[in-house]
Amino acid sequence: MIKVGIVGGTGYTGVELLRLLVPHPEVNITVITSRSEVGVSVTSLFPNLRGKCDLRFTEPSIETLAGCDLVFFAAPNGTAMGMARALLEKGIRIIDLAADFRLTDVEVWHRWYGIPHLCPEWLTSAVYGLPEVNRAAIANAQLVANPGCYPTAVQLGFLPLLEQGLVDPERLIADAKSGVSGAGRKAELGSLLCEATESTKAYAVPGHRHLPEILQGLQRVSKAPVRMTFVPHLTPMVRGIHATLYAVLRDPSIDLQAVYETRYAGEAFVDVMPPGSHPETRSVRGANTCRLAIHRPQGGDTVVVLAVIDNLVKGAAGQAIQNMNIMFGLPETLGLEIIALLP
Amino acid sequence: MIKVGIVGGTGYTGVELLRLLVPHPEVNITVITSRSEVGVSVTSLFPNLRGKCDLRFTEPSIETLAGCDLVFFAAPNGTAMGMARALLEKGIRIIDLAADFRLTDVEVWHRWYGIPHLCPEWLTSAVYGLPEVNRAAIANAQLVANPGCYPTAVQLGFLPLLEQGLVDPERLIADAKSGVSGAGRKAELGSLLCEATESTKAYAVPGHRHLPEILQGLQRVSKAPVRMTFVPHLTPMVRGIHATLYAVLRDPSIDLQAVYETRYAGEAFVDVMPPGSHPETRSVRGANTCRLAIHRPQGGDTVVVLAVIDNLVKGAAGQAIQNMNIMFGLPETLGLEIIALLP
Amino acid sequence: MIKVGIVGGTGYTGVELLRLLVPHPEVNITVITSRSEVGVSVTSLFPNLRGKCDLRFTEPSIETLAGCDLVFFAAPNGTAMGMARALLEKGIRIIDLAADFRLTDVEVWHRWYGIPHLCPEWLTSAVYGLPEVNRAAIANAQLVANPGCYPTAVQLGFLPLLEQGLVDPERLIADAKSGVSGAGRKAELGSLLCEATESTKAYAVPGHRHLPEILQGLQRVSKAPVRMTFVPHLTPMVRGIHATLYAVLRDPSIDLQAVYETRYAGEAFVDVMPPGSHPETRSVRGANTCRLAIHRPQGGDTVVVLAVIDNLVKGAAGQAIQNMNIMFGLPETLGLEIIALLP
Amino acid sequence: MIKVGIVGGTGYTGVELLRLLVPHPEVNITVITSRSEVGVSVTSLFPNLRGKCDLRFTEPSIETLAGCDLVFFAAPNGTAMGMARALLEKGIRIIDLAADFRLTDVEVWHRWYGIPHLCPEWLTSAVYGLPEVNRAAIANAQLVANPGCYPTAVQLGFLPLLEQGLVDPERLIADAKSGVSGAGRKAELGSLLCEATESTKAYAVPGHRHLPEILQGLQRVSKAPVRMTFVPHLTPMVRGIHATLYAVLRDPSIDLQAVYETRYAGEAFVDVMPPGSHPETRSVRGANTCRLAIHRPQGGDTVVVLAVIDNLVKGAAGQAIQNMNIMFGLPETLGLEIIALLP
Repeated sequence: MIKVGIVGGTGYTGVELLRLLVPHPEVNITVITSRSEVGVSVTSLFPNLRGKCDLRFTEPSIETLAGCDLVFFAAPNGTAMGMARALLEKGIRIIDLAADFRLTDVEVWHRWYGIPHLCPEWLTSAVYGLPEVNRAAIANAQLVANPGCYPTAVQLGFLPLLEQGLVDPERLIADAKSGVSGAGRKAELGSLLCEATESTKAYAVPGHRHLPEILQGLQRVSKAPVRMTFVPHLTPMVRGIHATLYAVLRDPSIDLQAVYETRYAGEAFVDVMPPGSHPETRSVRGANTCRLAIHRPQGGDTVVVLAVIDNLVKGAAGQAIQNMNIMFGLPETLGLEIIALLP
Repeated sequence: MIKVGIVGGTGYTGVELLRLLVPHPEVNITVITSRSEVGVSVTSLFPNLRGKCDLRFTEPSIETLAGCDLVFFAAPNGTAMGMARALLEKGIRIIDLAADFRLTDVEVWHRWYGIPHLCPEWLTSAVYGLPEVNRAAIANAQLVANPGCYPTAVQLGFLPLLEQGLVDPERLIADAKSGVSGAGRKAELGSLLCEATESTKAYAVPGHRHLPEILQGLQRVSKAPVRMTFVPHLTPMVRGIHATLYAVLRDPSIDLQAVYETRYAGEAFVDVMPPGSHPETRSVRGANTCRLAIHRPQGGDTVVVLAVIDNLVKGAAGQAIQNMNIMFGLPETLGLEIIALLP
Repeated sequence: MIKVGIVGGTGYTGVELLRLLVPHPEVNITVITSRSEVGVSVTSLFPNLRGKCDLRFTEPSIETLAGCDLVFFAAPNGTAMGMARALLEKGIRIIDLAADFRLTDVEVWHRWYGIPHLCPEWLTSAVYGLPEVNRAAIANAQLVANPGCYPTAVQLGFLPLLEQGLVDPERLIADAKSGVSGAGRKAELGSLLCEATESTKAYAVPGHRHLPEILQGLQRVSKAPVRMTFVPHLTPMVRGIHATLYAVLRDPSIDLQAVYETRYAGEAFVDVMPPGSHPETRSVRGANTCRLAIHRPQGGDTVVVLAVIDNLVKGAAGQAIQNMNIMFGLPETLGLEIIALLP
Repeated sequence: MIKVGIVGGTGYTGVELLRLLVPHPEVNITVITSRSEVGVSVTSLFPNLRGKCDLRFTEPSIETLAGCDLVFFAAPNGTAMGMARALLEKGIRIIDLAADFRLTDVEVWHRWYGIPHLCPEWLTSAVYGLPEVNRAAIANAQLVANPGCYPTAVQLGFLPLLEQGLVDPERLIADAKSGVSGAGRKAELGSLLCEATESTKAYAVPGHRHLPEILQGLQRVSKAPVRMTFVPHLTPMVRGIHATLYAVLRDPSIDLQAVYETRYAGEAFVDVMPPGSHPETRSVRGANTCRLAIHRPQGGDTVVVLAVIDNLVKGAAGQAIQNMNIMFGLPETLGLEIIALLP
């Protein structure tokens, strides 16, 4: 049994970690922290866990986390980098679901996150936790940076094209639509039901923090420089990301369906749908699956890739547990064989 | 392993049965039928099951179902009564998720359902599948009539009051709010997103078919005649029933919280919340739980019971599997220990 | 032209007042205040008003409001009572959309609102602005207390029964379902899309502040004491209240349809639907209409009244403008002949 | 007063025409037809119109329409082309809200709509009703083809770039998100609330009928050949289209904001927002406005245009009335000065 701690358990990735970890056969959650809810029972915040979890939130501290084998950080950006060094020095392994260790270049981090990094010496040894790219490194990692939600969908969608140099890497477009849970469980006007329902809008068009993360990931597998226009949108639903990806093919005669099916043949959590498919975000709601479809409209030179994930599962908590399974030598799908809730 | 057949697998209770039965450790689904989708793969209708289920729909027939230990009818009202006799004679057990065997009085059935009953001789030996009332009879039943969604919530909410004669049984009011999935997966104008979202309405106020079912169930446990005003409402959500129940207390000094906690102390799927609680339907989304709270506003003589269920789980497919577990001597919670999807 | 000021224009009743007052042919909005948004243009908060309104928010003060003929308070409870005296002394008329002047008994006010009243001397001369009851008094009022949203729907639904003594006034039940905009435009966790969508719950069952307001209004027209159980619910939509009202008839043979049609025959904003109807909240979305239907299920002695309004219009801003029209001798429907937005 | 007939009044564009035409000061609706609802009152289908409209649906026929000055076709594709010739020969003017007369090339029409055209001789003399391009021709037209919803948003967004040759016309991408009302008021599985809510998906990626319409419109103003990748998406809301448009700039140094502001300076229904804006679809809900914002992310050579409309208003009924106003010499904004319903 892996002794697990969760730092910052009051947000949506926190409660999603609990939903998935509580029934996990190899996990024992020993501590869950929340600065604002110390002493409060988890079930008073999340009644869906009544009868399943009798933990109470405690003050986050190195002492209480010291007995863990693994600590998940489900806290806001900036939390993990303040506690990571002390935990890592004790030999505790870490999966950070926030952004603190996703970018290897500290200057890029400063530019996009606007605060000094408190633990820069770990930036290069942290492993970027996208199993479909980094499985071997994740197995041996002490510190895993769990990918962002948009970066998971966009990278899984573009990877086969860039790995094989099939498209112009400087003309990538990622038009992504996200549910509102991506904004977190924070009392902000823009996330109110009355503000966000029955409406769609783009946001952060001038620049979103997930752009450098995506570029870094795609650049690693591309021989030529990668440039991308990334436009995230808010759509009126709770869970789900739909990434619609556009690229210009170098050779339109290539069998793209075969490229994708081959690339992801061994992947338990990537589902390449039959030709002509249109994946729905609800087909992965609550599941750790990325579902892909590949189109070449009117037989032109533009490829359109459709990628859907549940931002809280494959885009956050589920992928974190997938990483945990890899790190601890467990079957990668353990505790993650969930059928999406439909309808 | 129980060999299971599903008749009418293309509706919402059908896909919900699949979601719950596919991972069930003691179940082997051998046949799933649909008159309209013969030969079609289940996953082409329900892509959430891709990689989990390789069944195809077949024509419903006694022959193909003959090899089953248990047949679930997830078809419209009127289907099970046409096939039940032949299956029962072969010793096959049946759980009907529709209404064909819920009412014991064939005259009442005619009045509310408007068609002749094709299998009236089984009406009295069918067991009404509300485990919290009929557990022993269910264990030995060959034919179980799975309760309706509203009747499950309303009966679980009222039972302790009527069993103990604590309220005036002729002044019951059940004001129930349902998600749209209760209307089924049928192409009807009123269930369109553009018709049903962003709106609330009552319907069937002159009389809803679940009323006689509720009255029959409550009458069984009440010494005095039961009368009820039942008003169902359509609310703009997919899953969930919220029943708000009103009754006049005979003795307002009684400790109602204790009455409910005692009555449901041994029940795995009924959760009596702490005093002052307001259960949300989302706290049971996807789970087989009925969550209850009891109030006596301003200390008056009116008791208000709040009961929530997921209409597709405890109100349909989950309760059916709970009944199956009981019928086949399995642990009652097997395959049903699901944590609700929140948010 | 009426010179109008709006205090607290950043909430949902504020923007709704603007939507209705900007095109009103007899209104000139001269000032709109917001303590938090001083200097900000109205359209930067509410882009639906771009090109229609070039006001900027100013600091609320007696000086800036002194030039108005009428001031609407669309601010939180407790705001109007602090400024009313000074404005009233200048002869300015006031319509308060909050609760400060709705209850005539200062002790009741203290008990339910928990803060001392700053302007108690006006409590009895303020006119309760439900035109269907108080039209004549409203015409001459200097200070109008605009009714709450629930109280508007519940009173309009119950009034004919209580005015004529047709039901037992001590056994009233009001089960009300509201959209989330009733909670206001405030950054609170419970109003987030991810918390409030796809779920229904009751709240404030032990006691809601609209209960004493409803009781006061119904008591005025009832010869016998009135008691009510009031259970409000949150449903996942933006606008709309559906009140389902239950009462015990003294004489079940009475023609209730005729009673309601006669009572509201001259009312432009109350629509008694044909027998057997089920009004939908969306049928009044954006409109100043209360739509009613009357049922007597199974011919019993329980009457069920269904009443729907848009909580932001007939339940707030629209009713306030209806009151303004009456106060200033304008046609009562001026600027309010809106057709609901459907779908 | 213009005597107006509406053919096919039971769909969403039909009820929207009624919402806008009933209060229009220069319109008298004399006939509304529906083959399926002959004799039924309009208000029994659309209770939002109770008290505002006492029409009943009649059988569609040349005789009953012969007394009209103008006939709106709000019927499915294929209806107008069957009745147009007879009406036009009587001198009656027509605005077709469906697709029958949008494409000038009959071969293209056959290819995309799959049925023979019954009135091909009118294809070239019909005027495409996008006032921002064709105002003068519309004024004199006898037959106006009202644009599709996607084509309205996409063309208004791209027009300034193509008219001035600022982008590569062969690399256009239009990623469009639509509410479900675009699918019409038809009982189809895919439009059920339980199928369409809480999910996003692309559809018709291989080819959507609005693509040739958009290309035809853009080609008219472009000197060089136009090619486009068009991907429509279904998002879980009732009304609204959000088009996110991508193009490669020839000269990235151009002041795009000025280009757009100049182009649309005189247009009452096109609102170019300030730099950095992100228009929300809800900001135009119920209004006849197209709201635009122009971005050049990270100062690159890719321009991103965000365009929002209400698909039922500027994308259908509102634009049709705008065309009517132009055709009959009325102020273009008459009856259309609506403030969007927000929230």
